[in-house]
Amino acid sequence: MADTAVYRSSTTAPVNIAVIKYWGKRDATLNLPTNSSLSVTLSQSSLRAYTTASCSASYPAEAGDTLTLNTQLQNIQGSKRTLACLSDLRALRRGLEDANPSLPKLSTFPLRIVSENNFPTAAGLASSAAGFAALVRAIADLYELPQSPSELSRIARQGSGSACRSLMGGYVAWRSGALEDGSDSLAEQVATASHWADMRALILVVSDAKKDVPSTEGMQTTVATSSLFPTRAEFVVPSRMAAIERAIQDRDFASFAEITMRDSNNFHATNLDTWPPTFYLNDVSRAAIRLVHDINRAAGETVCAYTFDAGPNAVIYYLEKDSQKVIGTFREVLRADTEGWEGEYADKVRDIKSGLPLEQLDGRAVEGLRDGINRVILTGVGEGPVKVDAHLVSETGEILTVAK
Amino acid sequence: MADTAVYRSSTTAPVNIAVIKYWGKRDATLNLPTNSSLSVTLSQSSLRAYTTASCSASYPAEAGDTLTLNTQLQNIQGSKRTLACLSDLRALRRGLEDANPSLPKLSTFPLRIVSENNFPTAAGLASSAAGFAALVRAIADLYELPQSPSELSRIARQGSGSACRSLMGGYVAWRSGALEDGSDSLAEQVATASHWADMRALILVVSDAKKDVPSTEGMQTTVATSSLFPTRAEFVVPSRMAAIERAIQDRDFASFAEITMRDSNNFHATNLDTWPPTFYLNDVSRAAIRLVHDINRAAGETVCAYTFDAGPNAVIYYLEKDSQKVIGTFREVLRADTEGWEGEYADKVRDIKSGLPLEQLDGRAVEGLRDGINRVILTGVGEGPVKVDAHLVSETGEILTVAK
Repeated sequence: MADTAVYRSSTTAPVNIAVIKYWGKRDATLNLPTNSSLSVTLSQSSLRAYTTASCSASYPAEAGDTLTLNTQLQNIQGSKRTLACLSDLRALRRGLEDANPSLPKLSTFPLRIVSENNFPTAAGLASSAAGFAALVRAIADLYELPQSPSELSRIARQGSGSACRSLMGGYVAWRSGALEDGSDSLAEQVATASHWADMRALILVVSDAKKDVPSTEGMQTTVATSSLFPTRAEFVVPSRMAAIERAIQDRDFASFAEITMRDSNNFHATNLDTWPPTFYLNDVSRAAIRLVHDINRAAGETVCAYTFDAGPNAVIYYLEKDSQKVIGTFREVLRADTEGWEGEYADKVRDIKSGLPLEQLDGRAVEGLRDGINRVILTGVGEGPVKVDAHLVSETGEILTVAK
Repeated sequence: MADTAVYRSSTTAPVNIAVIKYWGKRDATLNLPTNSSLSVTLSQSSLRAYTTASCSASYPAEAGDTLTLNTQLQNIQGSKRTLACLSDLRALRRGLEDANPSLPKLSTFPLRIVSENNFPTAAGLASSAAGFAALVRAIADLYELPQSPSELSRIARQGSGSACRSLMGGYVAWRSGALEDGSDSLAEQVATASHWADMRALILVVSDAKKDVPSTEGMQTTVATSSLFPTRAEFVVPSRMAAIERAIQDRDFASFAEITMRDSNNFHATNLDTWPPTFYLNDVSRAAIRLVHDINRAAGETVCAYTFDAGPNAVIYYLEKDSQKVIGTFREVLRADTEGWEGEYADKVRDIKSGLPLEQLDGRAVEGLRDGINRVILTGVGEGPVKVDAHLVSETGEILTVAK
């Protein structure tokens, strides 16, 4: 009798925010980076992708594999990156089935994948890392693949470079690797979330962030035209990777923070040196940078660090123990009606109403931020993908809405 | 009988705007630069320093040398840079007097120097280059020194690095030199103003430019902390110097423009890479950059180029023949009440009311500029210092106000 069951597996996956930035590909098809990078995986209580992978012989073969993202059916035939992930995962499953003929032939069934994320709309937060990590993790679970997260990161990397770092929690390095086939370009956990659990992240969402050059295009233009980029890739990043890994092992926030800020600035410097130049930071971003330097100066020690991806939103890292100085000051500076001071991490700082004395702070930073930020997300270091029992596909294959 | 005459000599001197930027000193006392630079000397009909150098045995010895700048007496004893210039010029005069005892002993008389400039107040335009060039030129004339402008540039350089390039008109290189005593670090004219006379410059003065880190401090922080700066100084600038000199010789505007824009971006990239980072460009500057790229795209060729010194004001180079495309478009974009569309160069473009079709242009650039620029200065390549007969010191030594 034919097997018409619907096989399902579901997972959530986190976003990650790099402290040593990935920018530039040495191989665009395999998504092999020009340099190594390192990120902090953020808690899924604030931001996460939620994905169910299902497959069934009863799914119509003519529809092929399908992916529904936030209730919209995607054209995966038009996405080489998605196809590459599916193809690699299916090949691993086929290997299992070949070795053990008693296994159901899931590799021959169409996939029906459903994904939802809980990111604020249009916040400009890179959701592709969490999305591809969840997709790869959910299918790997569905297929009962024995591969480690590091081994799976090779596959996720082909979906979206930084997705490879979202397959693990805590502090994660993506080793650029040197081999042409990319087999040594994978993510590995440098430290667990619990090793340095009090790392927090305040995300400042810039109000009217207008889209600049997409990062896939922008990074290749930088590689091709910036006279400063080779120095970054060959010399600056390798020494910083080693130094920040030490700082993480030692829980040395001052070093972690300085390297994080300098690498963000260095990355954006190569963008300004790109031809034609690309700008991801704006005056609001610069106001956040000034405020962080002002807070550290007023505190007499380094208590917070900024970093910016390919957009104007700031991510401010700090330690729980410095919440009053950092969160208190940002809370005073931002408008009273700023959204987002809620959620698991915000509850812990609910009673902090004031921070460092504002007269010590740069007036420009205060004005610029107050007018430019309309939403914050307060979160912290978190775990990697988590397998969940509630599926976005019913036992009979219907697509369900997410169980919030 | 004692010589109580008042000896006088007066000059005007121009500003210059670099297209290959000077940033970083290898010797702070001698003002020796880390890399060579190249600038365009701008017409004195728009911007100039006006200086009278006078000396007399009748001036009170106890007051010493004096400098009155824009009617304010300066404390030159507190300015090592000014003292270094005066000392070197006096030594050259003493040499002449020693060789020819019949000469009046001007080197023994106190100097009374009076200077005025016609720069818009608080426009953030570097006036020190014109000021020191005028001071050195006026005293050299007073002392009847035989040294060439290049030889005098060694002295002016000690007052303000970029002043050495204001001793000549047209297109001027400042060779960094390699000798420790700085004797080979001097300016030389690459081409006269008449070689490429139709070069124009539109200066966009940003409304509420707030002062950032002063350039003397900023450049040394860049040298000390930027991981990208050595690449700029050792590799990027030398190849661009050679290329832009060729472009000037060939009157090749497209090459001149691209090198100018890329060097400005490269210079500001090293500032962003400085620790802590320095920002001279703001959102208004970026809007100007976008508009220039948009104009060139709409024109189908490179008709204008931006460059930014250590501040947000934009200088837009273009050729007279492209006035309609460039000036017409900027005029349409800027507010109707923008000040400064006047003066010798502006008169030539009085009848240009429109430029390239605005619908091809980036809306962001248009908005950002309209709100951020309240004054323009329209000028062009010009001559070096000019000796003038009207003095700012009377025959009897009184300080006069400038003859406008």
